[in-house]
Amino acid sequence: MQICGNLLIGQRAVRGTNSSIKAVNAATGMPMEPAFGGATQADLNAACALAWDAFDTYRESSLAARAAFLEAIAVNILELGDDLIERCVSESGLPRARIEGERGRTVGQLRMFADVVRNGDFVGARIDPGLPERKPMPRVDLRLRNIALGPVAVFGASNFPLAFSVAGGDTASALAAGCPVVVKAHSAHPGTSELVGLAVQKAVKECGMPEGTFSLLFGSGREIGQGLVKDHRIKAVGFTGSRGAGTELMSIASARKEFIPVYAEMSSINPVLLFPAALANRAEAIAKAFVQSLVLGAGQFCTNPGLILAVDGPDLDRFIAAASAALEQAPASTMLTPGIHKAYEAAVARATDHAEIRTLARGGPAASPNQGRAALFSTTAEAFRTHAELQEEIFGASALIVRCADLSTMLDLVESLEGQLTSAVHIDEADFAEVRRFLPALERRTGRIVVNGFGTGVEVAHAMVHGGPYPSTADGRSTSVGSLAINRFLRPVSYQDMPEALLPASLQSDNPLGVNRLVDGKPTLAQ
Amino acid sequence: MQICGNLLIGQRAVRGTNSSIKAVNAATGMPMEPAFGGATQADLNAACALAWDAFDTYRESSLAARAAFLEAIAVNILELGDDLIERCVSESGLPRARIEGERGRTVGQLRMFADVVRNGDFVGARIDPGLPERKPMPRVDLRLRNIALGPVAVFGASNFPLAFSVAGGDTASALAAGCPVVVKAHSAHPGTSELVGLAVQKAVKECGMPEGTFSLLFGSGREIGQGLVKDHRIKAVGFTGSRGAGTELMSIASARKEFIPVYAEMSSINPVLLFPAALANRAEAIAKAFVQSLVLGAGQFCTNPGLILAVDGPDLDRFIAAASAALEQAPASTMLTPGIHKAYEAAVARATDHAEIRTLARGGPAASPNQGRAALFSTTAEAFRTHAELQEEIFGASALIVRCADLSTMLDLVESLEGQLTSAVHIDEADFAEVRRFLPALERRTGRIVVNGFGTGVEVAHAMVHGGPYPSTADGRSTSVGSLAINRFLRPVSYQDMPEALLPASLQSDNPLGVNRLVDGKPTLAQ
Repeated sequence: MQICGNLLIGQRAVRGTNSSIKAVNAATGMPMEPAFGGATQADLNAACALAWDAFDTYRESSLAARAAFLEAIAVNILELGDDLIERCVSESGLPRARIEGERGRTVGQLRMFADVVRNGDFVGARIDPGLPERKPMPRVDLRLRNIALGPVAVFGASNFPLAFSVAGGDTASALAAGCPVVVKAHSAHPGTSELVGLAVQKAVKECGMPEGTFSLLFGSGREIGQGLVKDHRIKAVGFTGSRGAGTELMSIASARKEFIPVYAEMSSINPVLLFPAALANRAEAIAKAFVQSLVLGAGQFCTNPGLILAVDGPDLDRFIAAASAALEQAPASTMLTPGIHKAYEAAVARATDHAEIRTLARGGPAASPNQGRAALFSTTAEAFRTHAELQEEIFGASALIVRCADLSTMLDLVESLEGQLTSAVHIDEADFAEVRRFLPALERRTGRIVVNGFGTGVEVAHAMVHGGPYPSTADGRSTSVGSLAINRFLRPVSYQDMPEALLPASLQSDNPLGVNRLVDGKPTLAQ
Repeated sequence: MQICGNLLIGQRAVRGTNSSIKAVNAATGMPMEPAFGGATQADLNAACALAWDAFDTYRESSLAARAAFLEAIAVNILELGDDLIERCVSESGLPRARIEGERGRTVGQLRMFADVVRNGDFVGARIDPGLPERKPMPRVDLRLRNIALGPVAVFGASNFPLAFSVAGGDTASALAAGCPVVVKAHSAHPGTSELVGLAVQKAVKECGMPEGTFSLLFGSGREIGQGLVKDHRIKAVGFTGSRGAGTELMSIASARKEFIPVYAEMSSINPVLLFPAALANRAEAIAKAFVQSLVLGAGQFCTNPGLILAVDGPDLDRFIAAASAALEQAPASTMLTPGIHKAYEAAVARATDHAEIRTLARGGPAASPNQGRAALFSTTAEAFRTHAELQEEIFGASALIVRCADLSTMLDLVESLEGQLTSAVHIDEADFAEVRRFLPALERRTGRIVVNGFGTGVEVAHAMVHGGPYPSTADGRSTSVGSLAINRFLRPVSYQDMPEALLPASLQSDNPLGVNRLVDGKPTLAQ
């Protein structure tokens, strides 16, 4: 497969004529060939029309066929081989091992959703058989299943050029649910996007899925992204990115006549709470692990630990000394784009100059353009409480330690935090009684609570929640990682007194699909 | 229990001082004693503060205790006895048998949610055990459960003074999920609201639930309703009412800093499709059943059949003749409020005067004030397609029959319809091939598809969907009737590597609550 700079509209490769962009080599800052033509409104319209045409057929594809399609995408991505890895490394500035790992995660995610589709639990089949003899009124026969919402607009994320981009978690879960997908590629990795897009496009053809099941659009400004969210054929949005861009999409969606869900994963500082016994027993070990998590991937993770809360005293001083020493040893790392690097340095400079912030340590110096230096800061609880800007995410390897007078102050600060993707507590058994006071506050504002670890490393699993109250995501009732993510793209439909011959297979009495169902309120496992 | 006209703020009865309202006897138009004092902003604030204080305790009440609380509410409502029935009949103008039936439904709903709570499936417990030996990286231990969203604002509905009001479906499902509830009573039945509110307030005390678990506010204008939706402690909204009021609440919610879900059930004309074989074989029988459904409860149901689509011809003429004859026999019925009656008569007058609408029949004349006369109209497919106002709901016993040239025209019209709570198809076996073409279009815009029946009579069941795409509801991913309604008020939280001693009971390894769980992706039923 070759990178040509084309839009993929259904099975066609189309040259976009709405200006063009080039990728930038993250490590050198130099533009890369080829140029990618931006989509016009007509291209967007064509992609959405195809997606709409595909919807009824694709959503009723058999579970087996849809699972095979997801697996074919995985195979086709692997078949891109080193071309994909090399292009992705150049575009993202991320190390080869990370990109290979991310490819494994992307492929694993597609295969997990293939299993989820085959299993059929997501159909949520329920049957309440009719009771014709019931008094005073007979009970009708009611059967319920989930169906796909409709075509989904997916926005590629800059920081996961494979796992949260063209065939990443949002696309995999939407396709698994039965939704056609129109992807708006991220301008930071257009070549990676086209290669993966070609892999999906090929799988659509190989598996005989309707043409409009998948399209891929490029566009440098906001026109195409906003146009997708406005389009009446788009019924949900999957987005990972900044708070500014996410809230903008939320507001565009809420101005539509018809409400559609926007699943925007936006902003989180992922508080880490150090409790007294753990800090006394393991200050240095926790500090070392913390810095490892902080600088991983140049700190460019949604779950990056950006905030440490702890009670002031000699044990916290030990933690700070060890963390500072470790951070100073951390080499600068190439960031995803010049723009992200610039924003990071500006935010770190603002923190450095802030009257209430003390700089504790900086990582090693930049050795080439576009490298971010890690940063560790501290402040007081009072300053943190009164300066809202100290709660803002700095995207990159920067963290703020807040010295609290006591645990009650620390709990007050937790209650002042916005919604978060993750929070972490470091505890020993002697801390259990105290941490119990904190858990309700953490549950209320967090999607995932980590014990003696950090939020980075988001396992693709059944029990994973990568989500959380606003502003960490637009809709805290959902997750964008793990098998539960499929639920975002479904809605229930009930069938009353429908003859067997007309019922969808998942609801027919003899259960031809062999799916688990709730019958008369009782879970009934398929044999 | 006595009707005093007080607000119920936690365990207190408070005299509202923000002007006052009186109920109106629907049948006579006369005001009824006592006056109900409207809530001030301070009252609203007190109710929300109490709800917030109650939240952490109430949401972690044991499943058994919460189920017993729901059942206590049911018992206390029944103990109100005839006082409740009589007041409710006077305020609503609905017949005694209907109100008694609605009380049964309300009590049954509370008991169903008690069963749902005890059963524990709504917790959605999932466990992915850690795999410390996994290569290249160990897998962490992940456990997931649903927790309550937070305090919920519930708006009483005019047309279900018991089943969708103070202790109706929204309140029951929110309380079942673990959410405290602040109810804004509907001004059409304040006495009914206070009585039921007192029953809930008493159950809170009897069951030792935290005081703020329930509050009830009165208010004549929009101030209190809008204030609730704006309050930062309110985390979800349950509403049944008009499209205008519902979209207003949606827009207030979307202007909040933090997104909250608004579950507004608003507007639906519930299309009924008559297929050729069924029409040929059973025109008169279907017509009779249709008119029964249309005039039930003076047509004041969200699922009232307001639109008939059928192919023009002699069989449709037979249907129209039979329906017209039946409708003319239908006596006028007292409507819920003078305002609703006035709006109904105005809408019927507009239809009567519409150049593209033909009046087929009117029901019997009004015998007393505030009685609505049923109305049956017809129009052409062309007029229906080109006049958007013909798709607007007329709240009351009015329906429009659209004569279609053929089934393709009928399908085109279906594709032009907005989202609906229900749709119905009347079919015989000879129609199956044709109806298959319609089902995808119906699924896309309907929450429940009824075969050979009508949408009225919404069974409280596990497989019920009372919801649908906008504008039938604000969020088509949900239902407001049936056990699935509890999902509206939950969000998932994941716990990573949490020690057994700190895990919520539903996720502890020995499963002390005996709930069904998904372990490593496999449904694992409690013994």
